[in-house]
Amino acid sequence: MTYQAPVKDMLFVLNHLAGLPQVAALPQYAEATPDTAQAVLEEAATFAGDVLAPLNHPADREPSAWRDGAVTTSPGFKQAFRQYAEAGWQGMTHPIEYGGQGLPGLLGAPCSEMLNAANLSFALCPLLTNGAVEALLTAGSPELRERFIGPMLSGQWTGTMNLTEPQAGSDLALLRSRAQPVGDGTYRISGTKIFITYGEHDLAENIVHLVLARLPDAPEGVKGISLFLVPKFLVNDDGSLGARNDVACVSIEHKLGIKASPTATLQFGDAGGAIGYLVGQENRGLDAMFIMMNAARFAVGVQGIAVADRAYQHALAYAAERVQSRPVDGSSREAVPIIQHPDVRRMLGTMRALTEAGRALAYYTAGHADLAHASADPAARARHLAVQEFLVPIVKGWCTEASIDVASLGVQVHGGMGFIEETGAAQYYRDARILTIYEGTTAIQANDLVGRKTLRDGGAVAQALIEEIRKTEEALQARSEPAARLVLTPLRQGRLALANTVDFVVANAAAHPNAVFGAAVPYLLLAGTVLAGWQMARALLASLDHLDEDPAFHQAKIATAQTYALHKLTQAPGLAAVVAGSNEYAVQP
Amino acid sequence: MTYQAPVKDMLFVLNHLAGLPQVAALPQYAEATPDTAQAVLEEAATFAGDVLAPLNHPADREPSAWRDGAVTTSPGFKQAFRQYAEAGWQGMTHPIEYGGQGLPGLLGAPCSEMLNAANLSFALCPLLTNGAVEALLTAGSPELRERFIGPMLSGQWTGTMNLTEPQAGSDLALLRSRAQPVGDGTYRISGTKIFITYGEHDLAENIVHLVLARLPDAPEGVKGISLFLVPKFLVNDDGSLGARNDVACVSIEHKLGIKASPTATLQFGDAGGAIGYLVGQENRGLDAMFIMMNAARFAVGVQGIAVADRAYQHALAYAAERVQSRPVDGSSREAVPIIQHPDVRRMLGTMRALTEAGRALAYYTAGHADLAHASADPAARARHLAVQEFLVPIVKGWCTEASIDVASLGVQVHGGMGFIEETGAAQYYRDARILTIYEGTTAIQANDLVGRKTLRDGGAVAQALIEEIRKTEEALQARSEPAARLVLTPLRQGRLALANTVDFVVANAAAHPNAVFGAAVPYLLLAGTVLAGWQMARALLASLDHLDEDPAFHQAKIATAQTYALHKLTQAPGLAAVVAGSNEYAVQP
Repeated sequence: MTYQAPVKDMLFVLNHLAGLPQVAALPQYAEATPDTAQAVLEEAATFAGDVLAPLNHPADREPSAWRDGAVTTSPGFKQAFRQYAEAGWQGMTHPIEYGGQGLPGLLGAPCSEMLNAANLSFALCPLLTNGAVEALLTAGSPELRERFIGPMLSGQWTGTMNLTEPQAGSDLALLRSRAQPVGDGTYRISGTKIFITYGEHDLAENIVHLVLARLPDAPEGVKGISLFLVPKFLVNDDGSLGARNDVACVSIEHKLGIKASPTATLQFGDAGGAIGYLVGQENRGLDAMFIMMNAARFAVGVQGIAVADRAYQHALAYAAERVQSRPVDGSSREAVPIIQHPDVRRMLGTMRALTEAGRALAYYTAGHADLAHASADPAARARHLAVQEFLVPIVKGWCTEASIDVASLGVQVHGGMGFIEETGAAQYYRDARILTIYEGTTAIQANDLVGRKTLRDGGAVAQALIEEIRKTEEALQARSEPAARLVLTPLRQGRLALANTVDFVVANAAAHPNAVFGAAVPYLLLAGTVLAGWQMARALLASLDHLDEDPAFHQAKIATAQTYALHKLTQAPGLAAVVAGSNEYAVQP
Repeated sequence: MTYQAPVKDMLFVLNHLAGLPQVAALPQYAEATPDTAQAVLEEAATFAGDVLAPLNHPADREPSAWRDGAVTTSPGFKQAFRQYAEAGWQGMTHPIEYGGQGLPGLLGAPCSEMLNAANLSFALCPLLTNGAVEALLTAGSPELRERFIGPMLSGQWTGTMNLTEPQAGSDLALLRSRAQPVGDGTYRISGTKIFITYGEHDLAENIVHLVLARLPDAPEGVKGISLFLVPKFLVNDDGSLGARNDVACVSIEHKLGIKASPTATLQFGDAGGAIGYLVGQENRGLDAMFIMMNAARFAVGVQGIAVADRAYQHALAYAAERVQSRPVDGSSREAVPIIQHPDVRRMLGTMRALTEAGRALAYYTAGHADLAHASADPAARARHLAVQEFLVPIVKGWCTEASIDVASLGVQVHGGMGFIEETGAAQYYRDARILTIYEGTTAIQANDLVGRKTLRDGGAVAQALIEEIRKTEEALQARSEPAARLVLTPLRQGRLALANTVDFVVANAAAHPNAVFGAAVPYLLLAGTVLAGWQMARALLASLDHLDEDPAFHQAKIATAQTYALHKLTQAPGLAAVVAGSNEYAVQP
């Protein structure tokens, strides 16, 4: 089963929902014209479909393998990574001065989606490298940036994020890894890091580990954590590789999914200490790490959309071919392809609606990120940044939770064949299951949404977005088409449910923290359901406006908006009821 | 991670919710006293916990293996099956005249739950044997019953159900396997059957295949299907085993889960035709098969509860041990076990509530089955049978869909460790995924619920159950305790939502079949949510009445009823809205 990137759908979202015209109007992104966007997406689609997608299922059967400290990646990965690097994809959204192409993140999002849809395990390597590059760009000294970013953008080297330790997962305060200054400006790093994605592999010459550790005199807790760059091979002044650093891959994990991506346990400093370089200020490691994590969290949300789309395409193809049972409406005396059966349509429709809604919400967020980054007016930058920061935990949490549902529906569409590994549908169900966990579990996203993103400004950004939804309702109200009216009712109910819930969270968090944080995930799911549904309503309006240009395409968008409204927006009041009752009802674990 | 059967919880359901006193009052089940019930459950708990549970995870790593037509089961399975057989478990609910113990199915349900919770892959073998025994008891000739049932109940032989063929899954009308009468009362069977659970194995001396096939002159479609008994080894008149029959296991599947249970492709008749014996009348094979399937569907619903409870126990133990992060309410300056964090409590609470609600609904159904089977009054039998038949697709569909959610939450509670196969949580997520598929997908259950169980009687049984819920609301209303009031509100909303939905289904199915069948699964999920929530409300009332006897136990039940009400009953109106909108909103697959 291959993968065909939905370039047309992606361009529709970019142009009509996510603000590509506004982004391209900024001087920094003047190159991101509609023609460039289309060309870039089509090139990415070809690479993803032709090179990466065919490797995905075989790599699941022949995962990365560890031997004597070295990791051999799955067949074809090395060659594919060379192609990826040589085509310049790693530098696409990074600064031109370091060898990147300087394109907006809004164009990066669909390319990232394609990469991940084609091959989630492969795409994790570039994803982590992007995070490391972001951190260095923001917090690294000029010397570190100069030495390390170029080879990472060219694909000569890759990057990692080293946070987790056996006793410290979501709780970074419990970190124990140590960094000892040795007086020459470098540090000696020691400790054990687990769950390090692509912590060891054979795709590139060097690996640039970004590692959280504590200085000897550091305060306890998260305020005593610093960030260090620890290369696998030391780098000479001329940029050539020197000696092997004191970091060893002692094992990789046997996982439920994304089996081709090596998840390493790294041992730092067993031979005296790995040489590391401070990134940013001492004891301020989390600041830089949060930059990485924000980028990575958004990217994981996109992974959710990606695996959902792949699962959808797989199920759609099967449903069109598999013949079974006569139609319930008596329209045929013969068995028909199962895509004609109402419940299969419901499942595929739900899969499609969740995927398209998630995509629209994610790209919408990416558009705000670009505007936050490159707008001339500081007030505009702040405004867009606030929207972006509010939406990132929702994109991460909601799109990934949805991806599990979509992948599970994909198995269900296949019936018994879905449970057989050869079919391929089960792989998405296994792969997707990590997405609600890594880069911060859904609960961590929800706590971020409640704490930093809702309480801190008294719900101001949330209510501003809710006001935007209300304006979309006015636009729906002004249309005469029945589809607009159908979507309007549940959108309004959803918007009111969300508005009340934001008020509830703001009013009750201080007095009843256990209740509000116990309902944080339902709040996040409600916010995602409504905000993504808002995007579907906007898509509906755009398709009504452009119906004549491409009737079949836009009719499908109009129908998908209805499917989403019926199956997802109707669930918003129920989620709001969970939050509203959180302080009254007992929870028995 | 071991498994501790929740005997006390099970007895609570049997005695207070599922009608064990009424069942034990029937002459046929006079032996099923409270003491006997407790003794049987405790013995089953010991066997499940000590013998079967420790084999579960290792068997996942070392699944059944096929070689040259023979299947070797996982380490320990053979010895465990011997113990199972020798203790007489296979005959527990079957007639004494064939060597069974004649106990009611209401006691069989918890024992089956334990078996499946301990080891889903192992438990499938007895489950299928039970189905085959049921079919023979109902439709088999006295000679077939005499020859085959005894050795199946003693565990010497096992049974299978052979329905599926490559082109015929949910759609049995497409069956192609042939049966040729040879004039001596026997038939020669030929064809390919796939997905045959325990179709070949080394646990017992012989395998009794029940096989659907067509006679030469049979009508097309499902009215031309007959049922045949085809033993792996022929059986001599004295009961000893004769020649190998012409049936071969040509392969077993590589599956997502339940890896230890061999899923066989069986080839019948490659050497001239397998000798088979007609079960029941010619062309009436589906009647007997439906008996088997009804028993098996209920049993698969119980599997859902079982794997949910196992996943819950696993996650609960981890959450009590894993220390991470300080409490959000500031009650400690130190990191605490994660079970103290509100979202972990929400997840565990949801897991527990779904498991207990599903158990109560399933046992309630089993109680009606016993009353339908053994009541003296024919009118009472018919009444209980109608309730049982209405509930079976709901138990199968809703409990298994819930089990996937519960197993997925179990992974989530473990965080990153949940994704590592060694932890064990991922196995439940993989194993549970088959439960909504085999013995009829959720859509098949939902179509049954709509067609045979709702439309056929104009919603009469459904509305009678809804009236029972209303009476429970009256009982809640009469209580002064706040918990009763909290549960009352969402229960009433849920009951009204269900009542309206039944009316909608009855009113619209003929005119709008695609809409109603496209909402059949949401209807089933709504019915399950409300009916299981009703059981939780009944549990709440029972625990209020018995609070003094065991305060901690009953307080937990009261809290669990609230957790269910908050997190699940609140979702009922949203599900009803999906059904109500099904004829207006477009679905875009």
